[in-house]
Amino acid sequence: MASVTGPEIERLIQLLARVPGLGPRSARRAALQLIKKREQLLAPLAEAMRVANERILTCSVCGNVDTSDPCTLCRDPKRDPTVLVVVEDVADLWALERAQATMGAYHVLGGVLSALDGVGPKDLDLDRLVARVAEGVVKEVVLALNATVDGQTTAHYVTELLAPYGVKVTRLAHGVPVGGELDYLDEGTLAAAMRQRTAL
Amino acid sequence: MASVTGPEIERLIQLLARVPGLGPRSARRAALQLIKKREQLLAPLAEAMRVANERILTCSVCGNVDTSDPCTLCRDPKRDPTVLVVVEDVADLWALERAQATMGAYHVLGGVLSALDGVGPKDLDLDRLVARVAEGVVKEVVLALNATVDGQTTAHYVTELLAPYGVKVTRLAHGVPVGGELDYLDEGTLAAAMRQRTAL
Repeated sequence: MASVTGPEIERLIQLLARVPGLGPRSARRAALQLIKKREQLLAPLAEAMRVANERILTCSVCGNVDTSDPCTLCRDPKRDPTVLVVVEDVADLWALERAQATMGAYHVLGGVLSALDGVGPKDLDLDRLVARVAEGVVKEVVLALNATVDGQTTAHYVTELLAPYGVKVTRLAHGVPVGGELDYLDEGTLAAAMRQRTAL
Repeated sequence: MASVTGPEIERLIQLLARVPGLGPRSARRAALQLIKKREQLLAPLAEAMRVANERILTCSVCGNVDTSDPCTLCRDPKRDPTVLVVVEDVADLWALERAQATMGAYHVLGGVLSALDGVGPKDLDLDRLVARVAEGVVKEVVLALNATVDGQTTAHYVTELLAPYGVKVTRLAHGVPVGGELDYLDEGTLAAAMRQRTAL
């Protein structure tokens, strides 16, 4: 390729290939489209990335990313500081916000415990979580972690960690996804949904 | 989302969603990863895009994109100016170069004729193609167009357009892709491969 295009295009393709969702092949296609739609797409995207790179901060309270620290959510007086929702990742925080699932505050762990990936307690933002709970304002900690083995291992670990502070620790309900068809669901979910059935 | 993240992140997500290969959902995931890997990915990508936007030109001879005009290929004395390979798109030119399929010169049409998409001869770079052929250097025009209805319609149109100039007009061979299994091939390809079978 170096003989066909300059190093500038080659470098753009290489970097695009590292964006999640794009591979080496689609990165080439994306680069070409960006160059074609230079004024509508390439220039604004370059500028948006530059601005994002300059202005975006990680919230020192909850771990969310925003242009202010503390973040918009942490500064929002309408949020309930007595409910602390613990998530693995900023993406999960965003997902819960899109769903308007809670008015509680958040805490981003930055991962889950994983023996396979070599992620231990030291790699997660647990000290700050304990410190926040120790302040005494939080009454309930909702562990909104993925329903995977690692997620559940982490949930149990955090539960034990927070035991001395006498806060209520909860987790998200298991069950049939809204709009989901029973036929396509795994047995574990179906069994959990049956056990936790609710009165109509 | 506007309440969770600043307008800067929202704008980055919106622009990423317009990159081919990314949708609204994967754009959000990509934006988050870019922000997480700010120094390794976001900053270099922003810079690569800025540089590409500033430096990349469309070659006024062949229609390739490069940082020089005429492009590297058009200035390469090792290319054979008597063979002119006509492609629909820069992506096709790149594909042929990766395959080292030809040492000829290129001409990018910028599309194919399509009644459905309202693409007529005026929308393609045909005048310049005719002008290049009329110069008298080109002996063979290879129509390296997609084997689709639109591609073949365009091939026929270009063939008629070039008839007065007495150049040889060829197209790519049809056949079994290298590594392809007969069982998965369509009947048209199989029939063409049989008709054009070669001696071993």
